[in-house]
Amino acid sequence: MAKYMSMDHLKFVIHELLQVEDLCSLERFQDFDKDSFNMLVDSFKSYADNNMHPTVKEMDHQAARYEDGKIIVHPVVGEYMKACGENGWIGMSFDHEHGGMQVPATIKACTSFIGQAANNHLPPYAGLTEGSAHLITTFGSEELIEYYVPNMLAGKWGGTMCLTEPQAGSSLSDITTSAIPNEDGSFKISGQKIFITAGDHEYVENVVHLVLARIEGAPAGTKGISLFVVPKKRLENGTLVSNDVITAGDFQKMGQRGSCTTHLSFGEKENCLGWLVGTPHKGLKYMFQMMNGARIDVGITGASIATAAYYASLQYATERPQGRRILSGGQKNVEQEQTTIINHPDVRRMLLLQKAITEGAMALIFQAAMYYDLSAAGNEEDKEKNHNLLELLTPIVKTYPAEMGRVSISNGLQILGGYGFCTEFPLEQYYRDVRIAAIYEGTTGIQSLDLLGRKVVMKNGEAMKQLTKEIITTIKDAENYDDLKPYAEKLKSASKELQATLMHLLGFAMKGEHERYIADANLFMEMMSTVVIAWQWLRMATVAKTALITNSGNFSTDFYESKVHTMKFYFKYELPKISGLKESLMNNETLTILEASPVEFA
Amino acid sequence: MAKYMSMDHLKFVIHELLQVEDLCSLERFQDFDKDSFNMLVDSFKSYADNNMHPTVKEMDHQAARYEDGKIIVHPVVGEYMKACGENGWIGMSFDHEHGGMQVPATIKACTSFIGQAANNHLPPYAGLTEGSAHLITTFGSEELIEYYVPNMLAGKWGGTMCLTEPQAGSSLSDITTSAIPNEDGSFKISGQKIFITAGDHEYVENVVHLVLARIEGAPAGTKGISLFVVPKKRLENGTLVSNDVITAGDFQKMGQRGSCTTHLSFGEKENCLGWLVGTPHKGLKYMFQMMNGARIDVGITGASIATAAYYASLQYATERPQGRRILSGGQKNVEQEQTTIINHPDVRRMLLLQKAITEGAMALIFQAAMYYDLSAAGNEEDKEKNHNLLELLTPIVKTYPAEMGRVSISNGLQILGGYGFCTEFPLEQYYRDVRIAAIYEGTTGIQSLDLLGRKVVMKNGEAMKQLTKEIITTIKDAENYDDLKPYAEKLKSASKELQATLMHLLGFAMKGEHERYIADANLFMEMMSTVVIAWQWLRMATVAKTALITNSGNFSTDFYESKVHTMKFYFKYELPKISGLKESLMNNETLTILEASPVEFA
Repeated sequence: MAKYMSMDHLKFVIHELLQVEDLCSLERFQDFDKDSFNMLVDSFKSYADNNMHPTVKEMDHQAARYEDGKIIVHPVVGEYMKACGENGWIGMSFDHEHGGMQVPATIKACTSFIGQAANNHLPPYAGLTEGSAHLITTFGSEELIEYYVPNMLAGKWGGTMCLTEPQAGSSLSDITTSAIPNEDGSFKISGQKIFITAGDHEYVENVVHLVLARIEGAPAGTKGISLFVVPKKRLENGTLVSNDVITAGDFQKMGQRGSCTTHLSFGEKENCLGWLVGTPHKGLKYMFQMMNGARIDVGITGASIATAAYYASLQYATERPQGRRILSGGQKNVEQEQTTIINHPDVRRMLLLQKAITEGAMALIFQAAMYYDLSAAGNEEDKEKNHNLLELLTPIVKTYPAEMGRVSISNGLQILGGYGFCTEFPLEQYYRDVRIAAIYEGTTGIQSLDLLGRKVVMKNGEAMKQLTKEIITTIKDAENYDDLKPYAEKLKSASKELQATLMHLLGFAMKGEHERYIADANLFMEMMSTVVIAWQWLRMATVAKTALITNSGNFSTDFYESKVHTMKFYFKYELPKISGLKESLMNNETLTILEASPVEFA
Repeated sequence: MAKYMSMDHLKFVIHELLQVEDLCSLERFQDFDKDSFNMLVDSFKSYADNNMHPTVKEMDHQAARYEDGKIIVHPVVGEYMKACGENGWIGMSFDHEHGGMQVPATIKACTSFIGQAANNHLPPYAGLTEGSAHLITTFGSEELIEYYVPNMLAGKWGGTMCLTEPQAGSSLSDITTSAIPNEDGSFKISGQKIFITAGDHEYVENVVHLVLARIEGAPAGTKGISLFVVPKKRLENGTLVSNDVITAGDFQKMGQRGSCTTHLSFGEKENCLGWLVGTPHKGLKYMFQMMNGARIDVGITGASIATAAYYASLQYATERPQGRRILSGGQKNVEQEQTTIINHPDVRRMLLLQKAITEGAMALIFQAAMYYDLSAAGNEEDKEKNHNLLELLTPIVKTYPAEMGRVSISNGLQILGGYGFCTEFPLEQYYRDVRIAAIYEGTTGIQSLDLLGRKVVMKNGEAMKQLTKEIITTIKDAENYDDLKPYAEKLKSASKELQATLMHLLGFAMKGEHERYIADANLFMEMMSTVVIAWQWLRMATVAKTALITNSGNFSTDFYESKVHTMKFYFKYELPKISGLKESLMNNETLTILEASPVEFA
């Protein structure tokens, strides 16, 4: 089997960088230790090797499709849902009382990473089931929990999140799906939802839709949105009957084609019932409480597909002989044997770029998951700080792997030359698959507005201050090693440039020029992400250096040295990008705001 | 029909920026004038509208494929080849004596741009026929010309260029296809060629392959390569019989799927004859003399697909209502109607980025084509200068549209949100199609080596000096207008930074550290391309400003103002990238050279 990820790097991050086992001192996680964490992760890896990775190409080729009112998906979806249910993977991180194992989010993120790296077309089926069951356990009544959750965690019933409507897109204020109260406490649901991942298929007995809708007479905008459970089949007289949820089609996509993306129509025959989750008009708030998890999961999508692509391109570079190295005179000796392409500097650059992006992204993702665990189950005094850091970093965790994962894979594809463009080789599929990551669960534009418009300023900039403190700690740790000092210095200066840029932009917000303040949020996202990943790399290099010097750590000298080397690569080739971004962001010309810039685009 | 390009911008570039009609004073082009140029271009546009653009999606869907030893392509290929032959488009720029019209390369580039923007899957069929016929007319004997060229220009016989072999890839030194002389002057050809565009299909009566091969006993490396004409069918006793060229397969690709990419096997039955073009061992030199044209054509591929994508995303942005603008208090008014998304700053940014990339690329491409015309048919005193500029810019003309065209289309796709990822909408196809442009006719890595390793240093840096002169002229012209002065200043400083970076790198070459000198050629390519496109934008803005002030020019005030605006956008958002690139290139850490950087990649 082809290697699609490095378990060594994963273990390095969770154990040596993050000390995930420290979580076991918390009450919620007291049943676990380092070994049981590893056992969970390793057994999932073995499942992914044998049961997920082998169908990654087939699922692309035999795309999910709509036929006679039904969605046809690859049969491996059935096996996967069954295995996820039987092994307790769907409810892995749920409370014991809801049938879960109380596994930390950080460990859950590991299995999610492994699964998506192995075959990104499969995990959405269990992932959406988990997310929607989680919504029910968190905000639903005892009755709803009891009826729905056990079947969902067992993988017998699937779940979805139904937000998007054709006329509204990202603008959730404008959803129009309606809910009219019945006398028995249920609601009559009516409306259209699109882009519903895992919306329907034959391998679950029922699909439980978590639907955003407006109760008749609700206020306009997001404040009038409620959340409902709307099953595909409802119970009547002890049997499951149709609940008037019609599958109207399946969107055919460029990538992630094995994961179905349905168009659902609720209540065409005025016979679709839904049940309110929590209290009226709080639906969006509930949904967003879950959204952080979903966004971290999309970060995992980007990083894991890019990781699989990296290893595919590495294998090719290691095996393919082509050309000769340039001699000191500037010539090549054609009498020599061809060299494998991994020995060409430009190929090494493209490999190191992929390594820097994918490993840096993975470190940030697991870091964010740790913040989640500590904010949800940590000591009282740490909760707020961790929650703030999680909130601040979530849009970056979602966006960096999506945007730079794409760049990474493009470099991987390039290493294969013409073969990279051919369907016989795996790169072109990964290139297509990863493109969705910058779109779903909030596009890069939406994430950037969230970062600059809300997160960096929330609580008077408290989260931003805490992140700066974390970065300073990393800088100080690195300064203990002479050969890391220059990089510590670079991170310090990068962090200051980021602050200065932010202060400059805040000037517009203070003057009430809000549209101008957030106009270039996308560039700010790129700048801040670049600094945040530099922070992760300096942390990794410092941990690696310590392991090398103290001769501690579980990995080889080469392994640790490669971490230090990749950090240097990131600081030489990626971090300097912030100079240009700062220059653009500090440039006061207004070129993209309607009134200030009439343009004939045609 | 959906708009896929702007004829106004094209006319602006060729007439107002480049004054293409000045070419008519040269003997070779004396039959033409501005009107006849426009007539040619407009009639091709009308053909492209009616006969090329309508099948762009179908050709993707019904990909070229291999069945029972044959390649099946979309039937529109037959109509297209016929029309190209009948209208004289294949031989448009050929000499009168060879049946051509002696149309300037710049005008030919216009029709090429239009055709590829309309449907990039079709033009390779005529393009490869033209390229191979051009090789024969330039270097072949009278006999070869007479026998092959008329049928090729008539679109009855197709043509190909056969370079790549499975074991050699980009390393042409290592090709092994062999040619053994027969007594009658022909050669017995034997070998495998892959990635042969337009290699075989039923809509031409014969396919004329221009094949690189080694004559028995030839020296190793590129100095032992000869060029042969090897037809699919050869003439025997007045009829065409099989020449033992077997079609072994068709590579299935991520994009440009309507254009076939064949695997050919020559001489499996030892019955394949080829005829030498020119003299032995000069094959690569001949091929490369044609390669400049092919590389400009790939630049056109990147720029034209990105242009079609830009207009598709512009249409969506203009029609799609979603969300509301941010009010000065930082809030949105949900009682308001939704706004069309073109009014959101981030969408305007993504549109302007596409406009800046695609129009800038088009200007550079036609500029290079003008250099070609002036170097081939210009006054004696100008020939060398124009030839040098063409040589220097060719790798950039090939690479910038390929690399930045991809970025451009990704931004277009993003504007469509979830729909961008769906096959119902055109963006995802363009996103896939354009990816090949960075690979064929020499990958970006190869182009970058050519630029830094050969072109900037050739003739003692003469070409680079000439380019700098051109840039200075543009700066001086811009300085005539007060409001362009700041941008002229920026281009001046960017040009100096480029020079300084180059001098720094040359230091390594002078010390004999050649591998180190070219290790980051890719970054140098990005830096120099960014400056070169800034030069093109400042030129366009200056021409537009002149038209606005003197009230001359054929277009509206809005049109010219949008050129100045887009220049400003480029200078604010794109040009600053060179700061980071310079920083990386001036950083003396050696991280990608084998000996200096042992890395455990796994």
